[in-house]
Parts: sequence; C-alpha cells; structure tokens
Amino acid sequence: MRLSRYFLPILKETPKEAEIVSHRLMLRAGMIRQQAAGIYSWLPLGKRVLDKVCRIIREEQDRSGALEIMMPTIQSADLWRESGRYDDYGKEMLRIEDRHERELLFGPTNEEMVTDIFRSYVRSYKDLPLNLYHIQWKFRDEVRPRFGVMRSREFLMKDAYSFDIDYEASKTAYDRMFVAYLRTFERLGLQAIPMRADTGPIGGELSHEFIILASTGESAVFCHKDYLSLTTPGSEVDFSDAGQLASIVKTWTTPYAATEEMHDEAAWNALPENERVAARGIEVGHIFHFGTKYSEPMGAVVTGPYGKDVPVQMGSYGIGPSRLIAAIIEASHDENGIVWPRSVAPFEVGLVNMKPGDAQCDAICERLYAELEAAGMDVLYDDEDTRAGAKFATMDLIGVPFQVIVGPRGAAAGEAEIKVRADGSRFTLPVDGVVARLSA
Amino acid sequence: MRLSRYFLPILKETPKEAEIVSHRLMLRAGMIRQQAAGIYSWLPLGKRVLDKVCRIIREEQDRSGALEIMMPTIQSADLWRESGRYDDYGKEMLRIEDRHERELLFGPTNEEMVTDIFRSYVRSYKDLPLNLYHIQWKFRDEVRPRFGVMRSREFLMKDAYSFDIDYEASKTAYDRMFVAYLRTFERLGLQAIPMRADTGPIGGELSHEFIILASTGESAVFCHKDYLSLTTPGSEVDFSDAGQLASIVKTWTTPYAATEEMHDEAAWNALPENERVAARGIEVGHIFHFGTKYSEPMGAVVTGPYGKDVPVQMGSYGIGPSRLIAAIIEASHDENGIVWPRSVAPFEVGLVNMKPGDAQCDAICERLYAELEAAGMDVLYDDEDTRAGAKFATMDLIGVPFQVIVGPRGAAAGEAEIKVRADGSRFTLPVDGVVARLSA
Repeated sequence: MRLSRYFLPILKETPKEAEIVSHRLMLRAGMIRQQAAGIYSWLPLGKRVLDKVCRIIREEQDRSGALEIMMPTIQSADLWRESGRYDDYGKEMLRIEDRHERELLFGPTNEEMVTDIFRSYVRSYKDLPLNLYHIQWKFRDEVRPRFGVMRSREFLMKDAYSFDIDYEASKTAYDRMFVAYLRTFERLGLQAIPMRADTGPIGGELSHEFIILASTGESAVFCHKDYLSLTTPGSEVDFSDAGQLASIVKTWTTPYAATEEMHDEAAWNALPENERVAARGIEVGHIFHFGTKYSEPMGAVVTGPYGKDVPVQMGSYGIGPSRLIAAIIEASHDENGIVWPRSVAPFEVGLVNMKPGDAQCDAICERLYAELEAAGMDVLYDDEDTRAGAKFATMDLIGVPFQVIVGPRGAAAGEAEIKVRADGSRFTLPVDGVVARLSA
Repeated sequence: MRLSRYFLPILKETPKEAEIVSHRLMLRAGMIRQQAAGIYSWLPLGKRVLDKVCRIIREEQDRSGALEIMMPTIQSADLWRESGRYDDYGKEMLRIEDRHERELLFGPTNEEMVTDIFRSYVRSYKDLPLNLYHIQWKFRDEVRPRFGVMRSREFLMKDAYSFDIDYEASKTAYDRMFVAYLRTFERLGLQAIPMRADTGPIGGELSHEFIILASTGESAVFCHKDYLSLTTPGSEVDFSDAGQLASIVKTWTTPYAATEEMHDEAAWNALPENERVAARGIEVGHIFHFGTKYSEPMGAVVTGPYGKDVPVQMGSYGIGPSRLIAAIIEASHDENGIVWPRSVAPFEVGLVNMKPGDAQCDAICERLYAELEAAGMDVLYDDEDTRAGAKFATMDLIGVPFQVIVGPRGAAAGEAEIKVRADGSRFTLPVDGVVARLSA
C-alpha cells in the first residue's frame, strides 16, 4: 500500500478521553474512531489488524475441528425466555421492539440460539461430537463503557459451542478448545495463562479464563513462575486424541494460578516465595463447561446408543478479537508507540523513501516495494514528501515490525537501512539482500 | 472436509414457507436457518459461500483503490438528525433506546456515519480521491420480510463511499465503481446489466442498478440484446485512467436498458423487435452519485487548491452479498438442486466413496482427498456408509461443480468417474489424472 493513497489519520495530540495506553495509541495511530459511547469504527489500519487476529483464531478453531457458521446479531426474546435468561440478564442486554411490537434483542452471547439450531437438526449421538463457532458483533450495554475497545458496548466475539453425548466426551471437547486457545494466543504473540474462573451469567461449574500479564492489567492475578516457561503445543497436536489433550491440559492447570476472585491465600503462601508471580492481568479468553444448563430447558436431546433420549452436554468458548487487540498493545508498546508481533502487524514492512522525487531513491523503493509484496509481505510504502522525523515517528507509532529506509546516500551505494521496531536496532545491507533478510 | 465430521443438515421435504426456488434450495441444502421473521443463521455450507462471495467483492474493491474499514452496526440517532433522514426514514429503521435512554438505531446504510468519519480527519483536497468501504450487517425492518435472504431484515451489505473535490472527479469515482461492479459480477458467474435507476431514500440524480436476468426475477426489465454479448473489462483495467473508465461505462450504458419504473415505451418501440429483450430481473447492486446531499448539511468540507472551502462530492455503492447468493441460485439451478459457479461453490469437488470400508475404495479416496486439497481445491469427501442414491442426491442438491466417484469396480481398475454438475456429463479417467483434470 502506498501511503499517498492510504487513509491513515494520525493524531498529533494525545486524546484526553483515553485513560489507558492502548486506547491512546489506537486513537493516535488512526486505528479506531469513537462513534458513540462504547461504539467504534475500525479505520483501515485497525481493520487490517482485526482481520489478521480473526484469521489466526479461525485457523486454530478449524484445526481443532470446530465448524464455522454465522448467527445473526438480532435475536428473538422468546428464545431467551426458554432458558430463563431473558429476565436474569438485566440492563446489559440491549432490548429492542420492532415495527410489529415484537420483542427482540441484540445478542450479547449465543447459547440459546445455537442450542435452538442444534435441536432443530440433530437427533442422534452418531452426529456428535459437534462444535459450532461464529465470529460476530455482540452488544453489551455497559453502564460505563471505557478504555476504548477494551470495554466497549459493541464488540467482536468469536464464540464456539460444543455438543456431546456425555460428560466425558464434553470434557474432551473442553480440553480441545483449551489447547486451541493456547495455540491461538501463542500465535498472536501473547503469553496467556489459564486460570480457574467464576462462571457468572453463562453458568456451569468448570471454567477457565486465559489471562495475559501486563503492568496495566485490569485485575490482580497470582501464579506459579513455571507458567512463564511452559511449552505451547505445536501444530502437530492430534485433536482427536483425548488422552493427549487431557495431558496438555493437566500440564497447564497443575501449577497454581488464580485471579483475585478465585485466589486461595493458603495455597499461595505454601509456595516458595521465589516461585510466586503476583502481577496484573488482562482476560483475553474465557471457556465454560455448563453441561445441560441450556439443553435441558430447551429440549436439545439426542438418542443415545441404547435408544434413550439424553440432553446434550455443552460448553461455550469465547475470545474477543476487538478487545484482544487492545490487550496486545497493552502488553507490547513503548514510549514511541505500538510494537506489533509480526503475526498481527497491519503491515510487516514500512518502506521509507527519504527523498521522493530523487530518481535513485524512487527506483530502489519501487523495486523493493514490488519484490517485498511479491514475496508475500504486507508493505506500507511511504512515498510522501514529508520530513524525515515525521516519517520515522509515524512508522514507530503504528508499530510496523521492520522499517526499510532508503536515502540518497545509501541509494547511491546500493544500500538500504533496516530498523527493527522491537529493539530499535539498525543495520545496513545491500538492496539485493533486503527481501531475503526480511523473509527469514 | 470429511462429510462424517461436517454439519450438513439436508432437508428431505420442501419447506412450505418458501415461495421461491432459491429460498427452498437454501433451506433444503442446509445453508441457512430462519431464527425469526427475516432473520437468518448461516450454517456451515452457507457460510462458505458467503465467504467466497465476500472475498471476490473485496478483491475487486481493493483493486479499484477503495480502502476497507469496519463501521459499527449501532449508530446514534443524532447523526441522522444532521442529515434530516432520521424522521424521513420511516418504520424500516430499527430504532433502539439504550439503558440511559439515548436514541440509537441499527444502521440500514452508512452515509451519515462515513461522512462523519470523513469530516473528522480530512481537511485538504490533497487527500482526495478517497473511497472507504465496509462489509457489515444491516437491518431494515421490512413490513413483510420474505423470499428468505433475498428480502430479509438483517442482511450483509458491502457499501462503499467516495469523496472527491468536484463533480468531474466524483464522476470518475462513480465510473471506477461501475467498472469494479462489472468485474465483480462476472467473477461471481453472473451476467449483470447496468440500468438507470431511481435514487429513492439515498438521493441524488445519477444512479444505476445492476440487474441479472432470471425467469423468477422480482421485476420486469427491458434491454437491448447487445448487452448479452458485451465484454467485461479484464483485470488489466487501469483504475487511475479516467478516460479508460469513462469509455467502458459509455459502452455499457449506451444500448437501451431500463427497469419497469424507468421504462421509456417510445425508446423501446424504436428498437427493432428482434433486438429487444424483455425479461424478469433481480437487482444485485446499486450505485449512487448524490453530490453534496450529505456533505453540505453535515459540514464535510475540504480546502480546495485555491484556498476556498468546498463541500465534498460523494457517491455510495452497494452490493448485498447475502441477497446475491439467493440471486445466483435463482439464475443457476435445475430440478435436482443448486448449480454453483465454481468461483463461489462451497466446495469445488465432491469426492464420493461408494463403499467406505472397502480397502481399495478407501485408499484411492484418501489419496485423492489429500492430493486435491494439496492442489488448493475445496473438497467435500463423502466418507459415510449410505446409499448411492442419497449420496448423489446430496451432491446434486448442494451444487458441487465436480463429483469424483470411486466405486469398487473402478477402484480395482485404478479409475474414477467424474460427473460435471452443470451439464450432467460423466466420464471415466485413471485416478492419476484426476487432480490435473480438475485443476484446469
């Protein structure tokens, strides 16, 4: 993408309304714009990150065997009356009346609707296991939306729902998502620690939150330092091997880890002091096993192997891609701006032409632009005639992992300079070597 | 995808509520499920088609230079008061009150919001031309939603918005989208004819609908038969060449073409009878040039080259991917089911194992499944132990372009049979030749 044809509305001043660093940086980098309290537009740079995050989530959901669907944003109130949650949910639910005075709502989550889909079609245990997910906009009418997309009212959510014949199979479904989440967060450049969690309005007795450590995190968390060195399962995990999944989950749930609300002082104090990590955390995913909480009242039953009808065992599994982006920034930024992990960077390479109009600079930049894109990299080519300081400040602010800088002196010598955003290191190399170096 | 692990809820009976063939076939093929009047879930097969349609639309928008953003579904009523449309829009607008009694609405279109984004950031003519698009769910509270996703209340829409300094530049922006639309519909396997159209609640004086001919179409259309043989612009179109764009648009707007409401009997009767095509049509896209209708009341002005502030000239450009899928089916089906154009088929190949459990059949199918997927094709592998008739009926119903059939006799001879869905032709070839044949 040529910067001259791009829409990148960088803000010079720090917006006053932004209380946390991710919100400030997302506004300053022109990623998002607030349209109403807790409701945001995603501008081109933000949309690119959102797409990359969703792609990784989707690939790992698919790998685990989950199937993608798309449920609507608007739901019928009647469905929520079946589960009893229509009255329970309170003011966070955005309730709507249509022109025929029928009661609707903007879905805050989809347990009821997916259970309705299931009961409409599935009759036999032979069609299980089944896991359906979608990535769709949700709405929760928070009293006081804040922190930008970290706690917005309209937000994107990937929510998956598993259906199984008995507890054992559904525990395997839970483990399957647990492992998929470990892989997802690792690919997003995050170190996420699973912690036993309260189940809240979703219900059930088994639940984990995935928490990343960030000094600006919303809540206190406590864990054993072993978590910081555990190995994330590779892409060779066999998602049909219940034993393998259970063993990974065991490894990742054995050391002590708890959010403030589930914290056990006695267990914590029993740990040697130098093995304790007390930090701030941000929740980036939440998984639930709730058995028959929805299948029973809603009549989602299948015929079992001995001919008896049984309500299916269910779980649900959420990641909020929009919130996640804020969390990534909280965990990865410096005083100059965002520092994206390469996997979710809006552009992997920022190509900086120091002197547009200079024949040598232009020729080398055009060549590098074409070659980098041909090698499959996303490149933002700054072809604008602006001050050097502004060019670098922009590239630093928007967090492009690699800057390739082409100035008149280097161009004459057939060289370009590379700056690595993460550590600020710089080195010069022949123009011929740039693509290979950045492909590595 | 192995059918045994897929969720493909085929309906045996024709649903009574479905009045048109696309609705019937989408329900029967397990593509969609109605959740409330005019509100649908997209099941895995439908979601795959939706993704493929959106990908083609996105690629052609990007090629033309438009930039993707993502605006929220929920908008503030205040924004619509600025343009005067809040009161005009009537009961089709889904009006909502949040917990603080603030007036919101579910966006039926986004002219106001995108104009607000524009005026917040863009100050100078130097930042033009600009075209921002998004693909987002919309809601229009139709009195009587029907025809499945052809006229639903919640529907997906790609809407693009162009901003230019003067009429001439904005006419080029209009031409650019016009050409992008011709290319998009061709890639979707549709023959779409642009027709002068009424502008309705969007406003403006220049507007075209893109109409496909289908005997089950919603309205009568009239056009010159030359349209049926016009050449669609190739991928080499230069979207920065205003003259080239204008000349393509001229070619595509010169012969007579009109919907019923814009029909001119005199001009029509002046055509030789054998050059007239009177048919039924379905609208699949609609583009508008409306100048300063929104920029003026909303104060979206830029400083022009001579230092004077001018309101920007705008246009908007819509395609409904969800509706489009129904239109494709209306235009391409037979008595056995859907006949997908390959570009949007949920799966390109249906691999039919006639005797799962037979060692030779299984081995050949596993090999073909791996090789076809490795060649980049989407394959649905029917590995289930069901009757031959049911297997073929399903593949015909869901419209997979190529069926690769492996039975015990063929397997013993190292052969597979290929059935082409579009014309029903069948031929046998060595297993070794299948991938090359289907890659062509």
